[in-house]
Amino acid sequence: MKINVMTDVLEANDRIADGNRQVFDSNKNLVLNLMSSPGAGKTALLERTASALKGKLRLGVIVGDLETTRDADRLEKQGIPVVQLTTGSACHLDANMIAVALSRLDLSAIDVLVIENVGNLVCPAEFRLGEDVKVMILSVTEGDEKPLKYPVIFRESSLLIINKIDLLKHTDFHMDEAKANARKTHPDLEILDVSCVTGEGVSEWVDWLCRRYREKFGASIRA
Amino acid sequence: MKINVMTDVLEANDRIADGNRQVFDSNKNLVLNLMSSPGAGKTALLERTASALKGKLRLGVIVGDLETTRDADRLEKQGIPVVQLTTGSACHLDANMIAVALSRLDLSAIDVLVIENVGNLVCPAEFRLGEDVKVMILSVTEGDEKPLKYPVIFRESSLLIINKIDLLKHTDFHMDEAKANARKTHPDLEILDVSCVTGEGVSEWVDWLCRRYREKFGASIRA
Repeated sequence: MKINVMTDVLEANDRIADGNRQVFDSNKNLVLNLMSSPGAGKTALLERTASALKGKLRLGVIVGDLETTRDADRLEKQGIPVVQLTTGSACHLDANMIAVALSRLDLSAIDVLVIENVGNLVCPAEFRLGEDVKVMILSVTEGDEKPLKYPVIFRESSLLIINKIDLLKHTDFHMDEAKANARKTHPDLEILDVSCVTGEGVSEWVDWLCRRYREKFGASIRA
Repeated sequence: MKINVMTDVLEANDRIADGNRQVFDSNKNLVLNLMSSPGAGKTALLERTASALKGKLRLGVIVGDLETTRDADRLEKQGIPVVQLTTGSACHLDANMIAVALSRLDLSAIDVLVIENVGNLVCPAEFRLGEDVKVMILSVTEGDEKPLKYPVIFRESSLLIINKIDLLKHTDFHMDEAKANARKTHPDLEILDVSCVTGEGVSEWVDWLCRRYREKFGASIRA
């Protein structure tokens, strides 16, 4: 016999996620759920984003980790509002954790809120947090076949950031193959090539954020 | 209210894992549960191991993936027995999946059975499969702070393989820092530095396997 605990859990999660979404919308927040494997560069991308977005949109971050507040410490140095969620053994963030975090942030002072999920290519993809859009990072050191092996997260994401392209020449990662594999899984997937070390692709990423913000809220960019 | 579904799940899993372990012991199998992030090099290490172990110990592999049989295809080219488990959306292997796989393998023809877990630094660490020993891989491209951020898997593993050391010079990964962080989490952790590209460290890894086999079964290496 199989008891589908998972279905109940996801339904309860979705109700809370809908509530979070209402709060975000009323505060005019564009909200991203940022997912990747451990060490693919989520925090490095957000460090780059914090400075690149200055004068355009106000960034805020909720960051999830099993333990340590290292990512939050790195991001606070950028002078942006950050809330760290320490999940213990939980392998993903869920909507309820986000609901708790919201009370610690002044959402009216944020335009783009990025939720940096736990480093994991599997579990985070199934739990809606109330975000507008899911974005994932794949590092070139992980291999170009990953979209075929972890299809759910590639299917759920609207944008794929292929990071660490500065390391391309030292790997057997084929960019064409990776993109073909990703689009086999998700034909409409948008893809950006980025290096958080050299800064290549960061301005395209910032343009993407500004475009998504304008699409959601019209021309009324406050920052 | 919190219902601790997880405790019941883990207890049921442990009972099945104990059964698997009895089957392994009676077949004189040394069994490893091999864990890492996606793309850290589990399959590459096993390709290297298959040839390096020839004439010493007979290798067999059970490999878990969400989708695709790519890893099994790669390993079958090495002429070793391989069973692929496709988990769908499950983020880790559990003891029951292994019990199912066992009927597909001639365990009496295997000395070292490696179970290549789903690429994930979180969930696999909590589910015993019936293995003798847990081994994990950390790739230098993932960052030297990972032992602090994902402590459970470092605590559960007996051996840490730090892979992709050929890429060290292109990263800001500090080997000393990584090892200090790992041993902060797990003081007795054994650590090997490996490159599956250059082959550096592979013979130390094979020595480690032979030693563990001898420790379990005395001098009676059959191969």
